[in-house]
Amino acid sequence: MGSTHATTPVHDMPPVGWGDPNRRTGLPAAAATWLQAEFGLPVAPASPGPVRVPASTLDDLSLAALLTAVGPEHVLLEDPARLLRAAGKSYLDLVRMRSGSVCAPDAVVLPGTAAEVRAVLAACAAHGLTVVPFGGGTSVVGGVSPIGPSPVVSLDLRRMDRLLSVDPVSLTAVFEPGVRGPDAEALLAAHDLTLGHFPQSFEYATIGGFAATRSAGQASSGYGRFDEMVLGLVVQTPAGELRLGRGAASAAGPDLLGLMLGSEGAFGVITEVTVRVRPKPGTGRYEAFFFKTWEDGLAALRALEQAGLAPDVARLSDPDETRVQLTLAGTDGLKGRLGRKVLSARGYATGCLAILGWDGAAASIADRRKVVLPVLKSRGAMSVGTSIGDRWKHGRYDGPYLRDDLLDAGALVETLETSALWSQLPSTWTAVRTALSAQLPGCVVMCHVSHLYPQGASLYFTVLAAQSATDPVTQWQNAKDAAGHALVASGATIT
Amino acid sequence: MGSTHATTPVHDMPPVGWGDPNRRTGLPAAAATWLQAEFGLPVAPASPGPVRVPASTLDDLSLAALLTAVGPEHVLLEDPARLLRAAGKSYLDLVRMRSGSVCAPDAVVLPGTAAEVRAVLAACAAHGLTVVPFGGGTSVVGGVSPIGPSPVVSLDLRRMDRLLSVDPVSLTAVFEPGVRGPDAEALLAAHDLTLGHFPQSFEYATIGGFAATRSAGQASSGYGRFDEMVLGLVVQTPAGELRLGRGAASAAGPDLLGLMLGSEGAFGVITEVTVRVRPKPGTGRYEAFFFKTWEDGLAALRALEQAGLAPDVARLSDPDETRVQLTLAGTDGLKGRLGRKVLSARGYATGCLAILGWDGAAASIADRRKVVLPVLKSRGAMSVGTSIGDRWKHGRYDGPYLRDDLLDAGALVETLETSALWSQLPSTWTAVRTALSAQLPGCVVMCHVSHLYPQGASLYFTVLAAQSATDPVTQWQNAKDAAGHALVASGATIT
Repeated sequence: MGSTHATTPVHDMPPVGWGDPNRRTGLPAAAATWLQAEFGLPVAPASPGPVRVPASTLDDLSLAALLTAVGPEHVLLEDPARLLRAAGKSYLDLVRMRSGSVCAPDAVVLPGTAAEVRAVLAACAAHGLTVVPFGGGTSVVGGVSPIGPSPVVSLDLRRMDRLLSVDPVSLTAVFEPGVRGPDAEALLAAHDLTLGHFPQSFEYATIGGFAATRSAGQASSGYGRFDEMVLGLVVQTPAGELRLGRGAASAAGPDLLGLMLGSEGAFGVITEVTVRVRPKPGTGRYEAFFFKTWEDGLAALRALEQAGLAPDVARLSDPDETRVQLTLAGTDGLKGRLGRKVLSARGYATGCLAILGWDGAAASIADRRKVVLPVLKSRGAMSVGTSIGDRWKHGRYDGPYLRDDLLDAGALVETLETSALWSQLPSTWTAVRTALSAQLPGCVVMCHVSHLYPQGASLYFTVLAAQSATDPVTQWQNAKDAAGHALVASGATIT
Repeated sequence: MGSTHATTPVHDMPPVGWGDPNRRTGLPAAAATWLQAEFGLPVAPASPGPVRVPASTLDDLSLAALLTAVGPEHVLLEDPARLLRAAGKSYLDLVRMRSGSVCAPDAVVLPGTAAEVRAVLAACAAHGLTVVPFGGGTSVVGGVSPIGPSPVVSLDLRRMDRLLSVDPVSLTAVFEPGVRGPDAEALLAAHDLTLGHFPQSFEYATIGGFAATRSAGQASSGYGRFDEMVLGLVVQTPAGELRLGRGAASAAGPDLLGLMLGSEGAFGVITEVTVRVRPKPGTGRYEAFFFKTWEDGLAALRALEQAGLAPDVARLSDPDETRVQLTLAGTDGLKGRLGRKVLSARGYATGCLAILGWDGAAASIADRRKVVLPVLKSRGAMSVGTSIGDRWKHGRYDGPYLRDDLLDAGALVETLETSALWSQLPSTWTAVRTALSAQLPGCVVMCHVSHLYPQGASLYFTVLAAQSATDPVTQWQNAKDAAGHALVASGATIT
């Protein structure tokens, strides 16, 4: 096959906030009421103002080298273009943006080929410029921060948006790095294939970014983390091109591919990603269950995973996350859909919501679900049908929009992800909650289990509090440090 | 739990050959006849003679430092002790041993703790000695060769043979590196757990060796390669102790653990290995099937693996391997057991033997087998029952003994393993066969698929020929080089 470009136009996010402004809905009434009651936050939210960036410090010789490397139409120096690559999308990134003034790269270059990437790296090396690779700009760990000892060049990979080849026999595909999630799925769908990687940033993040950050998707229990899907990388470095990985699986020597995955672009610029793909599943079933206790839910998920029976999506919210979800949705939403079933059954109203999802053909889903039900039942799970699951699947990429509404309302809202062994998971959960509550009095800490492994699981924490009016950056940094120390002390991993 | 030592006594292999001399049975009559007919090899085999090693070149100061590091009773200088660590067990290792004279380490040290390993490394660094870690001594890639710019110390880890801890909730266990395969299984069996890693070297190889070499087991389709089972390592280096890996699965940053796995001891000495374990399966079913063609067999295995239905063991022999297995076994063995069924059915007598194995509870095996049968049937597979599979499982560690008999008979016999994408697998198979046949006229090249991945599979080649009477080392090196070039040209990986 010939290579295929992504066809959807690139839609830039606003610098302060997430996604398509037309998809912002504002907080539901129930949520605004709850925020006021819980944290004393204002009913009338405030929108952010404009953001200033410093003037570019790029000198004429450096500029000339970049112009030669990629051509004049692919070097951007204007403030809006530089602002767009000034930060990722963490809570602190957004708080800084809302302060009205941020650092920005001194230039943006848009190479169209691996050769142009090498030319950019050579120009930057010759002129002492710092290079920051930029994909979807959805990093929440400072991966695109324009910090360097010298002028910073943002190397935006959006023009490299092709599906280069597909091997339908071996189920592999080769992408350029700038292909965004929905485009990758559309390009593969033409071959009846799917990548099956659906992180919350899916709509904007890129294939290259998934690889550079070891991204974990929302269906990762079934499909695996992104690093497990990567069979090979082509990486451009100032010292030349690296071709890492080969064949189906190699048992030969140290794993240099593994060293590059998760390196956040520190060792080079990814220009090709070979990934595993799979036949596109025909249908799906996303079913919600209630457990009376967090312990019951954890025990059920552990039993399923260790028996090799885990569904493709397994998401278990703790009591606080379940309670807040019910409250925020209001009686017209989640709570209404649940009806009397959960709220009237003894013990379940203060319990935990789980969403289990299966992808594939209907017959295969029925077979896999059948063997799961006895395990769930033995831990007292009650099915509440598929409407909550369908709603979750439909809204799985809406979280960042809600975050913007919460920031408008003056809330601190941030997430932390960790993984822990099953035996350490309860103590890790308690340690993080305790640490955050000590640093952020009155906060609400929510948590769900997002990815299962035979030896343990990932915990995804969301913390909500009133934002400090004087120094929100230090407020969150202190809380994050405390949570980090608690994690390490409990034996867990920070991701 | 307290830590537990392995209880079986360490049984040293003979320097020239494999395993327990009492388990050598000699070639079956049918095999001797076939070797004479096919390669003109002698009917009366010749046993190898004694082997000389050079005198130790260790100076007194170096010796004193080693004695201080581990104590006088744990430094061995005698010829038999040094000969025992002089080589691995590749064909070339054995050919060199049979020549009657080999290089050997200048001293053997047996540290009992990580602190003693550090002390040995410090002593060797101070006195300019080369250190070669030694586990089971089963390397086939030169991993224990005593080659260095200076006197060589073999660091034998056999005394570090404890199971340090078990976490039955998270299904993990921590071993010292010197625990051999059967001891590891016995120690875990006391907790109703299994590691489930069964390479051909299982009876002698060690946990530390499995990790240092990225070992792949015979049931690896179901249980995964050993590197996928390793959650953490403690490694002693001249610069200090490294603790790599943590928790259930980490998505944080570059993978240093992956860099150490497969490093063959080049970066340090492994002193602790944390592995995934699983509940001990209750029973097992190893069933043999015949396909009419290699292509049918490959297509069936690919379909099973890509649908997530692969059994725990999936081994498919090509027509030549099937033919030689049938011939060597004679009418009393495999051929007799097959009976008229295969040999009289049109097309199957020149076909391919597959062994599919399931471990677990009987009900689970029945469920998993049921969904496999239609896939096998669609490719014309014929079941020939479980007797061949049971015999294979029982004799799965006997291959190296047979090799010694073949060497006695004057045969060249060696193996090569590679992996290839499904789409490249037929061309890789052809390329290796062609290259070996061109270098070794009259040879027989056998091959089986040993490990399945969604994107491809491993090919395990065995080549048999008459050994060169004048220069068997160069004879094999030329053949191996030719096969290696053919592999790379076909896009496969050498392991």
